[in-house]
Order: sequence, then structure tokens, then C-alpha cells
Amino acid sequence: MVRMSDTRLEYLIGEDVPYIDLTSTVLGISEQPGLMEYFSREECVVAGVEEAARLAEMLGCEVEMSLSSGDRVAPQETILRVTGPAGSLHQAWKVGLNLLDHLSAIATKTRSMVDVVHAANPRCEVLATRKAMPGAKDLLIGAIMAGGAFPHRLGLSETVLVFDHHMEFIGGFDGLVRRIPRIRRRCIEKKLFVECSAEQAPALALAGVDGLQLDKLPVDELAGVVKQIRAIDPRITLIAAGGVNPHNAADYAATGVDGLATTALYTAKPLDMSVRMEAL
Amino acid sequence: MVRMSDTRLEYLIGEDVPYIDLTSTVLGISEQPGLMEYFSREECVVAGVEEAARLAEMLGCEVEMSLSSGDRVAPQETILRVTGPAGSLHQAWKVGLNLLDHLSAIATKTRSMVDVVHAANPRCEVLATRKAMPGAKDLLIGAIMAGGAFPHRLGLSETVLVFDHHMEFIGGFDGLVRRIPRIRRRCIEKKLFVECSAEQAPALALAGVDGLQLDKLPVDELAGVVKQIRAIDPRITLIAAGGVNPHNAADYAATGVDGLATTALYTAKPLDMSVRMEAL
Amino acid sequence: MVRMSDTRLEYLIGEDVPYIDLTSTVLGISEQPGLMEYFSREECVVAGVEEAARLAEMLGCEVEMSLSSGDRVAPQETILRVTGPAGSLHQAWKVGLNLLDHLSAIATKTRSMVDVVHAANPRCEVLATRKAMPGAKDLLIGAIMAGGAFPHRLGLSETVLVFDHHMEFIGGFDGLVRRIPRIRRRCIEKKLFVECSAEQAPALALAGVDGLQLDKLPVDELAGVVKQIRAIDPRITLIAAGGVNPHNAADYAATGVDGLATTALYTAKPLDMSVRMEAL
Amino acid sequence: MVRMSDTRLEYLIGEDVPYIDLTSTVLGISEQPGLMEYFSREECVVAGVEEAARLAEMLGCEVEMSLSSGDRVAPQETILRVTGPAGSLHQAWKVGLNLLDHLSAIATKTRSMVDVVHAANPRCEVLATRKAMPGAKDLLIGAIMAGGAFPHRLGLSETVLVFDHHMEFIGGFDGLVRRIPRIRRRCIEKKLFVECSAEQAPALALAGVDGLQLDKLPVDELAGVVKQIRAIDPRITLIAAGGVNPHNAADYAATGVDGLATTALYTAKPLDMSVRMEAL
Amino acid sequence: MVRMSDTRLEYLIGEDVPYIDLTSTVLGISEQPGLMEYFSREECVVAGVEEAARLAEMLGCEVEMSLSSGDRVAPQETILRVTGPAGSLHQAWKVGLNLLDHLSAIATKTRSMVDVVHAANPRCEVLATRKAMPGAKDLLIGAIMAGGAFPHRLGLSETVLVFDHHMEFIGGFDGLVRRIPRIRRRCIEKKLFVECSAEQAPALALAGVDGLQLDKLPVDELAGVVKQIRAIDPRITLIAAGGVNPHNAADYAATGVDGLATTALYTAKPLDMSVRMEAL
Amino acid sequence: MVRMSDTRLEYLIGEDVPYIDLTSTVLGISEQPGLMEYFSREECVVAGVEEAARLAEMLGCEVEMSLSSGDRVAPQETILRVTGPAGSLHQAWKVGLNLLDHLSAIATKTRSMVDVVHAANPRCEVLATRKAMPGAKDLLIGAIMAGGAFPHRLGLSETVLVFDHHMEFIGGFDGLVRRIPRIRRRCIEKKLFVECSAEQAPALALAGVDGLQLDKLPVDELAGVVKQIRAIDPRITLIAAGGVNPHNAADYAATGVDGLATTALYTAKPLDMSVRMEAL
Repeated sequence: MVRMSDTRLEYLIGEDVPYIDLTSTVLGISEQPGLMEYFSREECVVAGVEEAARLAEMLGCEVEMSLSSGDRVAPQETILRVTGPAGSLHQAWKVGLNLLDHLSAIATKTRSMVDVVHAANPRCEVLATRKAMPGAKDLLIGAIMAGGAFPHRLGLSETVLVFDHHMEFIGGFDGLVRRIPRIRRRCIEKKLFVECSAEQAPALALAGVDGLQLDKLPVDELAGVVKQIRAIDPRITLIAAGGVNPHNAADYAATGVDGLATTALYTAKPLDMSVRMEAL
Repeated sequence: MVRMSDTRLEYLIGEDVPYIDLTSTVLGISEQPGLMEYFSREECVVAGVEEAARLAEMLGCEVEMSLSSGDRVAPQETILRVTGPAGSLHQAWKVGLNLLDHLSAIATKTRSMVDVVHAANPRCEVLATRKAMPGAKDLLIGAIMAGGAFPHRLGLSETVLVFDHHMEFIGGFDGLVRRIPRIRRRCIEKKLFVECSAEQAPALALAGVDGLQLDKLPVDELAGVVKQIRAIDPRITLIAAGGVNPHNAADYAATGVDGLATTALYTAKPLDMSVRMEAL
Repeated sequence: MVRMSDTRLEYLIGEDVPYIDLTSTVLGISEQPGLMEYFSREECVVAGVEEAARLAEMLGCEVEMSLSSGDRVAPQETILRVTGPAGSLHQAWKVGLNLLDHLSAIATKTRSMVDVVHAANPRCEVLATRKAMPGAKDLLIGAIMAGGAFPHRLGLSETVLVFDHHMEFIGGFDGLVRRIPRIRRRCIEKKLFVECSAEQAPALALAGVDGLQLDKLPVDELAGVVKQIRAIDPRITLIAAGGVNPHNAADYAATGVDGLATTALYTAKPLDMSVRMEAL
Repeated sequence: MVRMSDTRLEYLIGEDVPYIDLTSTVLGISEQPGLMEYFSREECVVAGVEEAARLAEMLGCEVEMSLSSGDRVAPQETILRVTGPAGSLHQAWKVGLNLLDHLSAIATKTRSMVDVVHAANPRCEVLATRKAMPGAKDLLIGAIMAGGAFPHRLGLSETVLVFDHHMEFIGGFDGLVRRIPRIRRRCIEKKLFVECSAEQAPALALAGVDGLQLDKLPVDELAGVVKQIRAIDPRITLIAAGGVNPHNAADYAATGVDGLATTALYTAKPLDMSVRMEAL
Repeated sequence: MVRMSDTRLEYLIGEDVPYIDLTSTVLGISEQPGLMEYFSREECVVAGVEEAARLAEMLGCEVEMSLSSGDRVAPQETILRVTGPAGSLHQAWKVGLNLLDHLSAIATKTRSMVDVVHAANPRCEVLATRKAMPGAKDLLIGAIMAGGAFPHRLGLSETVLVFDHHMEFIGGFDGLVRRIPRIRRRCIEKKLFVECSAEQAPALALAGVDGLQLDKLPVDELAGVVKQIRAIDPRITLIAAGGVNPHNAADYAATGVDGLATTALYTAKPLDMSVRMEAL
Repeated sequence: MVRMSDTRLEYLIGEDVPYIDLTSTVLGISEQPGLMEYFSREECVVAGVEEAARLAEMLGCEVEMSLSSGDRVAPQETILRVTGPAGSLHQAWKVGLNLLDHLSAIATKTRSMVDVVHAANPRCEVLATRKAMPGAKDLLIGAIMAGGAFPHRLGLSETVLVFDHHMEFIGGFDGLVRRIPRIRRRCIEKKLFVECSAEQAPALALAGVDGLQLDKLPVDELAGVVKQIRAIDPRITLIAAGGVNPHNAADYAATGVDGLATTALYTAKPLDMSVRMEAL
């Protein structure tokens, strides 16, 4: 699970509750004890549960019961139950709900795509790219992991992945190929990946890369490239990227690649979730 | 435009570049001068441009040209052009692109829905709810405003909007109606809004609320309620909420409501945008 | 009550205790157990109690007993009692005391003014402007609310209040009046307020504003304007602002306005409060 | 001048402008060029000028002219002139004004008290205690320094000042006196100060303290103590504290003490300042 | 002990664990219960224990047993024992170990130097300069205090220490000497220190400084200066600085100075510490 | 170069200058123009130069000239020259110096070790572990990179490195070996590394790991293991770790390993650097 600090949760609370809950104050209900239960109207895999529970605590609620991110729930099933003064419940309500319905939607979509992919090819991983909504990366990484995917790369500082845009500065594709032996010696603990076309793949495989990210290849063409590269070097990690989505994922997986890098998981309509609230 | 501090942009940069750009470092290209241009492959309304420009500056680039959020661009048209050392360009690349493609998608969707709504009813506002992706609220508010919508309420501290969940603590709907005179005296600078059903609307109008948020009413039923409430008090602000989306927005607007509160704008598949990069 | 995060309280602690309590360290008393009680030498309404209690906890103390913000206390009555090692008590001492004596002074002044105002006109609210000491806004809002007042507006992002300085950009007062219908359609969830003189008030009332903030009118003149505007439109919210203070508040309230906006509450000499400390 | 980071100024801006300037947005004036001049209706010593100027820049304004904190201004004299789009001017307006009118009031009060004190005793310093409004300490320290006073102690970590409350843990006053030689050896770079009564002063002077803070002594009694202690050790720093204010400061200074520690400077009614704004 | 906020500890955790513990995740062991004990392979004085314990709690561990900073431990002795899920243990492991082995090395070096100095001259303090590793000052101050030393000055805002570089702006050494009476009146609560050479010391002593920091004097020469200055004014605080280290500290102390200011304590090879981990 | 935000630099400034430069204030020199040049008394490779330059700017100085991190300088050569008011220069002085002398010491030590290692084996990388001083990781990573080394792993979230402590939870070494095929499928973009003994190495190589970290092997034994593993699989990355330091690095490199992981680089006595300051 992605580590989430109180400081971070405080930021999320502050997005919705900068000072007070004006409505509860005006209604004069802030101190009345109550109970709140989060539930989903759709079957889903939940995510963001630990965060929603912790922020409710930070706002003065007590957590009575809580599922774990990654759990599958039925419609109407309680995901999280908290008690506390109504002012605290109302402050927690939407911040928690926004976390749960956005993140569970992503986890559910992910789970479904991972299942489809593994059915087609149990050795193929689903990898979420770094093209996440700015400001929400930690939450989104948590959600795709709750759904069974892995982050492709968490950021620029940790992996070596060469794009066309880099080649512009090193003499193009030929420049890159010539440099590969030298590059390999500088990043000995990381796999050297290059994003490439079908035509470029064999030269890179021969030059000694650790992995190829095959961008926007039709499934058939990809299947051919996989065979070709496996013949050159069976250890090279092959990833399909560009346009991979839940609908074509099984086909891509069936080509024999090791993984699918996809951005599609990050966009999911929030689930229809809500809360039950009652005075105690 | 939503104010965006350097500290906030720094957070967004840090999501992708905690320390270094490993690939550029390993390739040895960090100091080579280059140029980068953002463009869209789809016609759209851009958003996030000022943020993408400023963060490129913060990373050591110089902004050569920049459109403004809210501008409409044609495919391939340059949105933002920056120059700088390749290490800076590559650090800025994806953070800026993620801002532009996510936020422009939302601005474009918003612009389209606002245009449809205004065509059906020029006096009807499009209002984005507070059900935004946690962690990205400021960005999302900026994007819907770039597309011509307004935030419905920025958070809990500033408006009075009573939901069913509040009524639980004040004796239900009847308790609320009885309290309305008293509540009105406590929030004299804010409009008092209540989310309600068609049945509840007349009693609330007679009790003196400033606004009604009519939740999940079919268009036909809504039209009837609008007429009924206008007859009671033509000044009451009427907002349709719950299930409003780009497809039904014109119909909802045509009922004569003053505004549509919608969450649908916040979920939009990132646009197909990219950068052109070249060595200088 | 205004939400106060640990991060915020940490800032307040850090203002006084960046690293260590040098005196306790030099005296060698840091680990000795002790008890500290806050009390006031003047009768007052307390504020800041929850914050003082929580920061004492954050510094290693245990809270034995604590009143609530808004409570009225007699001289010498204990407001907050904590125990802990002397080093923790001394670190908490002045940070807590500064909160209690500054904020309780404001709450007490507020309570007194609110009582006077409600005696003169039970339907008149006391509203604290946004002209608070920079850096302390959250604390000050909490204090005036503990005393029974409401914030007038929490900031620029949430309400529409037009000043002379805006009119400069829209063709002066006449320009504003002409635009009012258009403005009203853009801010349908907020009341449209204009700050104005006695002369300007009728035209604005006729043009359809939701509220008028009558600036620096003598009481007699204000009473006349109130009648005049009520005759035009009894629903318009009328607020007296500019120079309202505890001494003239009853007279202003008696004019029949709906509220008084005042800055005077934010300046109050800290109360004469202190602590009792003893070794255990 | 107190160092003020952009991050800190950002916090102050965020207190008033979390997202947008709604009024300027609704009026549609955000992009119109304008000019804003801050001035005071009362003669005063200004403070907070550099901060107000910098935050205007951070909000998109250009600073045309600016006085310095500590300068004395006549009524109507321009303190700070900035230009920029009206949206930026209106965002900067009140944040800057709140800084200027609060801090200049404190600087002016301080300047006046310092002048009175120096007239009575040119060798007597005015020292502001650490009992400042929580959340605003840096600003307040800047203001009293702009008025010619010095901070008494910036916090707990840097000076040794023993109060009654410490003595509780070390065997009372006698315990303290016995420990003084040992304490002196542990804080060789700091002066050892003790807050004490008239009766306690001689024993502490003989025991070797570096300074005495004489708490709440009437002026006459203080004058006697000063002579008595000077006779014992002319080098001991003598500070009068407790109840010192602008009205009695000259008398206290005339007793021959080296300094006056006062909290009174931090509470000053904000000056009557305003802005002139015009479209360009 | 130096106060350490959760926010600060969060920063330290984030240095090592930005999102997840990838290895534990990949191994699938995150939820298995376990126990972890920190110990040292070398005898030492521990520091950083409270911080390591608290951050383990923040990461989901429970603290079973913990020594205190300043305690001396034998090889293999348990310093801190925590239990929790393996994912939490592995997240806490190295962050805690880095604190313990770096800070205990400094505390141990300090303790040893303090003991040597006090053996040579019980009235001589060991003072750590402000030349600490940037980013780690709070931790380093805590470590030298755990070892029995004191911070020399925590920063620029709290003490007056004149260097050659200041004299450049006030007419050189002679300018400084002339100004000393005036300076003394401005900083009455602080000792006025000047860093100087042997030649400059007498003039400064006669001019009335409170302390001299004698920079880079050989021991013999220093001994002479000490006698000379004590004869002029026995109360002047004398500090030896520049090149003082554990090897020569006893000799410097024996000259009769009141304190030794040293930077040497901040550089210490981390101790050979490790953890025992076991599944429960 | 490691990206360093203004917010981060602000933290470093605040460690030394929380409010004011008291000495410059008391001396009354804050506004006098001056010049400051950083230089080293020892030949070295500089690091931290960009940070020192930027923070001087943030404090009100102008940068006249600046070398780049990684440059080699001769004694007395100017590294960075800034001008500005004396108050700004004195605020920047020690913060900048602490950065330069600490980080350049590390860069210099690193450069020397890298040169020695490359002389012995040009294909062997020097890798700095994650056992850096807490609170200073970003600065330390920058320094070792300025000296030609690479970070071994930036944190827990990005690489897979199995230690003994993990094996405790998966059935010991045998459990690990059995799991390797499964683990490999889960981390397809990362190399799977295991820290192991000489005895364990062959089994791991046969099981299909990508890399081995050979811990605390004597040079001779290591040489044998390298040959043995190369015979099994020449592509496995071999890293020597544990006790590698500048003195034995060449010998370790000569064994034919691909890299040396060392903590020794992070501990280096700050260089003897200083500033020249003059009034202008």
C-alpha cells in the first residue's frame, strides 16, 4: 500500500474544509453524536479505504469498522463505518467519499483488466504509466496497486527509458545504438529500456538493451516482433505501450509480451457510492 | 484564473522528478540546448498553460511563446514553446504534458457543455460540484473555469447547502422547515440552499429558502417543479443536480432552471497531446 | 469550531520553541514531573482552549481537564490542566498562554458586543470582516465564533462584494448598475453585495442586488436608508460597515439592519491570564 | 529586517485568496490594466512595506515605487504603488493592506514609545516580549524593529531566563540561588537572567547573575532597587517588565534600568489606511 | 532534547520511502507480523532513539522497548525493539538505522571529548559550532546534546558575534573598538562576542566586550592570552575556536578558557549498527 | 544535477537565519553594499555551487560569477562571487559555506575514488548507498554525482533488493530461491537483486536473478566468486558491498565486479573553505 502521511491527508481535507463546516454550524448540529457508513451502489474493488478511515479520525471520528483496499464489495455492503459528532461526520463525508468513489473506480477497472490479461497470458503484467492526473499521483498509484497492477515507473529519477525525444540530442537512432554499450555501463543496476518501433527493435536487441517498449504497434505486428526479438535474445523484457486499454488488453497480452503499459486505468468515472448517516 | 503558487507547482514537479532525470544523465545530454513545443493532435480548448509555462521556468527553461488557458487551438498548433538545456526540457516534459492533456480535456468538455446549455437557455449556468479528484481540486477548478463553467461551491466553509444527511440531526424534513426562519437569520450573507425532492420543494419555497437544488429529477418532472416554484417565489434560485451530463444538459437547461450542478466535467480522457523536441 | 491541523499547531509551537527549551535544559529540570493549570485573572469567555490542549499533547503532556471554547469562566477558575515532564510543560506554557489570552480577549469582546446587539435587535448578526491580522486568520475566526459572531466573508474566492475600486474598471457606479442583471446570472449561488453610500443605495436596490453594505453612515442616516430600501425590496440584506464598534453597535443594530460588519473585534488587549505550575 | 520567504508570503496570500477573486471574475475585469497606491490617512511609521510589495509581485503586479519599513509618512503620501491586471490588484489589495495597517500601527506605536524612552534615558532599550499573537510572530518582530525596538527574546531555545515556575522544580528561590554558580558554567555564551521581585534581587546579584528582570515593580520602588543593585554590581543588566506601557515608559526609563520589556506594543488598532485604484 | 515534529519525521521517512517498499511488495510479505531490534556492534552513547521510535510508530509499528538518547550501550545490547507487519518494519528499518548510526556516532564522539575536556578543566564547556551539515541541523544539535555538549549558537538571529568580515564594513578593527560602547547598549540581553587574534584581545577586553572567541591560537599562546585577559577583566568569557578537536581538546581546556567551540563533532563515521529481524 | 526547489533552499536558510542577522543589525551595517567571494584553501572538486548561488539570490544578493558543481578548483580560486547589501551577504555567508565545504569534500573524495576505480577497471561503477545522513539526502546525492558516482538506489520504492531480513519472512534462503521465478514476473521492469554471501551466489545465479550484491567478501574470495558467477551467467550484474572504501576500492574493482556500493563517500571532513568579503 502506498504510504500516506497525515500531512498529505491534511492537504486533502483542506481542499474541502478550509475553516469550518458552515452548514452544520448554522444548523447548530455540530456536537450531536452520529454514525456514518460508506457503501457502494455498484459491485467493486475498493481503494482509498485506509485513507478515508484515517482522515475521519483526524477530524474527530472513531472508526468502528473498515475493509481493506483491494477488497471486493457487493452493492450496499458497508465499506467503512465511523461514529462521532455530526460536525466531524459532515467534514469527513465528502473528502472520504471523493477518495473512495474515485479510487475504487480505478481499482475496479484495474482489477478487471488485470484479470483479463492474466487469463490471456499469466506471465504478462499490467503496468500503469506515469501519465497520472497531476496532484493525485500517490492516490492513483495506490488505486492501481489495489487493483493488481504495478506502477510502470514512479518518476524520472529511477529508471532509464529512452524516447525519440532523447535521440534528438544524441545523433538520432543510430547515435543511440552506437552508445548503448557505454550507457549500459553507467546504469548497471537498472534495466536499460528504449521505446521503439517495430523496425528499430532488432537493432536495439542486438545492441544489448534490457527492455523494449513497443509503441502503438497493432496486435498482429506486435506478435511478429515478439517472436523476432525472443529469437535474438529471450531475456529482453518486452512491453507493449500506446493505446493499450481494457478492450484490447487480452489481445496484446496474448502476443507474449511481458507487460502492458497503459494510461487508460487512470480515467474512470467515479463509482456510485454514498453514505448512510444517522443520529445516535 | 485560479492562483497557483510556486510551492504548489513544486509539488507537481516533485511527483515526477524527485531528484534527477536519470535517463538524460545516463545519456549525457543534460546540458545540450534544445527546444520543446507542446501541441495537441485534437482541436480543443486549452487549460493549464500558465502552470505548464511557469513550471518549465522553474526547471530552468525559458518560455518563448505561450497561449492562454481558455484559448481554442487547432490540431498541431503550438500551445507552448520553451527552450533550455535538454535536462530541463526532459524534466518539464511530462509534468507539463500531464497538466495540459488532463486539464485541456476537461476545459474542452466543459466548453462544449456550456455552449450547449447556453444555446438552450442563455440564463442557465453550468456549475461544477465539489466532487473533484482529491489532490487536484485547484487544477480542476481552473480547468472548468477555462471552459466557461463556475465552481458550484469551493468547500464546506463558505456556503449553506442542507442535505438529507443534515435533516437526520434536526428532526427530519419537518424539523428543517420549522427551523428555516431561524437559520436565515444566521447566514444573512449567504443564500440558504436545500437539496430536495420534487415533493419537498414547495414547502421549502414557502418557508423562505434562497435556493433549491433539485436532485435527480427527470427532465419533465423538473420542468413542472420549476413552474410551480417560480409561481411561489420567482426569486428562488433553482439548480438541477444529480445525473446531469453533456448529453442531457440542454434538456435540463430548457426547463428554466438557473443552473446545472454537474460532476461529469471532472472525468475526461486526457487529450492526445505531445511535444516536438529538437536540439538547438 | 475552526478546524486546526497538527501541522498548523506545529507552526505555532515552532514560533516559540525552534529546538530546545534552553532554560529548562540548563537548570536540569526537563524530566521532572509536574502539573500546569491555565487560569484567567479576569472573568471572560475562553477561546483557543482546544488548540492549547492539543499542542500540550503534541509536546508530551497529558490533558487532565479542559473547558471548551465559548465557555465563560470566573477569575482563578481552571481553564486547562495538563501534567507532564517539566520540559514539556515549559515548552507548552507560553505558546498555550499566548493562544488563550489573545483569543479569549477577542471572544470576550465579541460575546459582549453580540449580547448588546441582540438586546437592541435580536435579528441583527455581528459579522467580523476579513481585515484580520495576517498569519492568524484561522485563530481569529475561531475566536470570534467562540464569542458568537460569524465571519463576514472568509476570503476573496467565495462571495461577491463590489467596492468602489471595482467600479473604476466598469465605468463607475452607472456602469455597475447597468451590469447588475448580467452579473446576477453569473453568480447564481451567491448573494450579490455592493458596498455603497446612502445616495447609491436606492438605485442598487432597484437594479436587483441581494445585499447592500452601507459604509460609514451615521446612525440616523442609516436608519433612514434602511426604511427606504425596505420599502423598495424588503428582502435585500442590509449590513452596516465602517466604524462599527462595541460602543455604537447597539445604535447601529437598532436601525434595523440585518448585520453589522466590524473589524473592531480583532483588536483586543490580551487578557491577564497565567499558569499555576507545581512539581509532582 | 526580518527575513520573509516566498513560502511564508504565499501562506498569507492563501488566507485571503484560496483560489480566485470571485468578484473580479464575475465582473469580468480581471485582465484590465490598473494602478493601485497604498496610503495612510494618518501620519505614521510604515512597516510591512517590503512584504506587501513582494506579494503584489507574486500575484502578477509590478512594483512602481515603494518606501521602506521604518520610514515616516504624511497623510495621503503614497507608500507603495503597483500596476498590473485588475485581477492581480484586487487579489493583492487586502492582503497588502492588512499587512500595512496592522504592522504600521505597531511600528508607529513603537517609534513613539522608543522616542519617549530615549528622551528620558538614552541608554534604555525598548524590548518587545515574546507574548505576540500566535501565527504572526515574524511579522510582529519586523514591525517593532521598524519602530526602533528590539526583540527581548525570540523564543525558548536561545536565552536563559528563570521564572518562578522554574523554581518550583529546583527547591524554590533558595534552590535557585544555590545553583547559580553551576548554571553559569553551563551557559557561558548567554547571559543568565532571572525574573524576580525587589526582595529577591540583591541575593541574585550577589550570586552572580548577568541580568535581572524586575517584574511589576512600581516606579519608585524600582528606582531604589536599581541603585541597590548597581552598588552590588554595576554590570548587571536590569530590565523592567510587567505593566510597562507607552504611558509609564518614560518614568520607568528614568529609573536607570537598561531596558524595558513590554507586550503593549503588539496590540495596536490598525491604522486608517487605504488604496487608490485606477484603470490604466 | 531537541523537539522533533511529526512533519519533520515525515520528511525523513519520505527521503527513503516516497511511495511503497517495492521489495516487500514484490515478495508479498508486507502483512506478515514481525519483530525488529536495533543494536550496535560497538559500545557507544546512543542518540536519535526517540526519533527512530516515533517514526516506526508513524509507519505502523508498535514500540516494545526503547532506550533514551544519551544512554550508553554495550555491543549487541538492544536499543529499540518494535513489532509490526513486515512492510512497516522494512519501511522503518533504514530510516531508523541511518538516524541511529549517524547520530550515535556523533553523540559518542562528543561524550568522549566532553569527558576529556572536563577531566582537564571541569569549568570548560564543549560547544558545537553552527557549521553543521545543511539539512540536518536539528538532528545534529540533538546528537551533540545527547553527548553532553551545548550548541554554541543556534543561528544568526540570537547572538552577537563579530567576525573580521563585519569589521570590513565599520572601519576595521579600530572602528569596531570605537563602536563597542554603542553596540553594548543595543544588545543588552545578549553577550557581545568578538572573534579575534591574540593581538586584538586586550583592546577588546578594555573596550568592554562580554566575550572573546580566540581563533586558531596555538595552545601555548592561548594560555598566555587567557592570563592577560583575566587580569584585565576576569568576567570576560573566553572561548577557543578554530582547529579544536578531540586530540587537542584537553590541552586547550587546560589553558583555562571557559569553552571550546568545535566543528569536529559533526563529522563522525556512522557506527556499525544493525537490526535483528524475525517473523512472529 | 539534483533538482533543488526554492522551498528546500528556504529550509536550509531557515536553519541558520530564522528571523534576522542580529549582529549585522546591531552593528548597523545591513544596508552597506559589499562583495563576497567563496574560495577553498585546498584543491578540490566543488559541489553545491548552484545551491549556494541560488540561496544568495533568494537573500537579496546578485551573483556575479559562479563555477559549476563538478569543476575542479585550485587553492584560492574563486568559486562563487556575489554582491549585495552587507545584511544579505552575512545571511548567505555560512549557509552557503556549509553547503560548499561539506558537499565539495564529498565530491572531492568521490572523484578521487572514482578515478582510482576506473584506473583499475574502467567498467566498474562507484555507487553510493542509501545510508546517507538523514535530512541531507538530496544534497548528498548531488555531491556524489558531482564527483562522478551514481546513486545505488534512491529509496525503497524503486528497486528490488532482497536482504537476509526479507528471507526471514519467506522461508529463509531456500524459500527465496524457490520464489525467484515468481518474483521475476512481478518486477519485469526492474532488475532483481539479492544481497548474498559467496556460498549463496551460485544458487541465486542459477535461479535467475539479475544481480548479486556480494556483502563483505574479502577481495580474493570475491575474485573467485566473480569468475564462478560469470561462468554461470555472464550477464548477471555483480556488485561488491560492505566495507568498500577509498583504500581498498581499486582492489575490489580489479576483481571484475560491475560496481562497488559504498557508504564511505558520505563521511568527509568539510574542506577548509572561506569567504573574502569587502565593502563596496
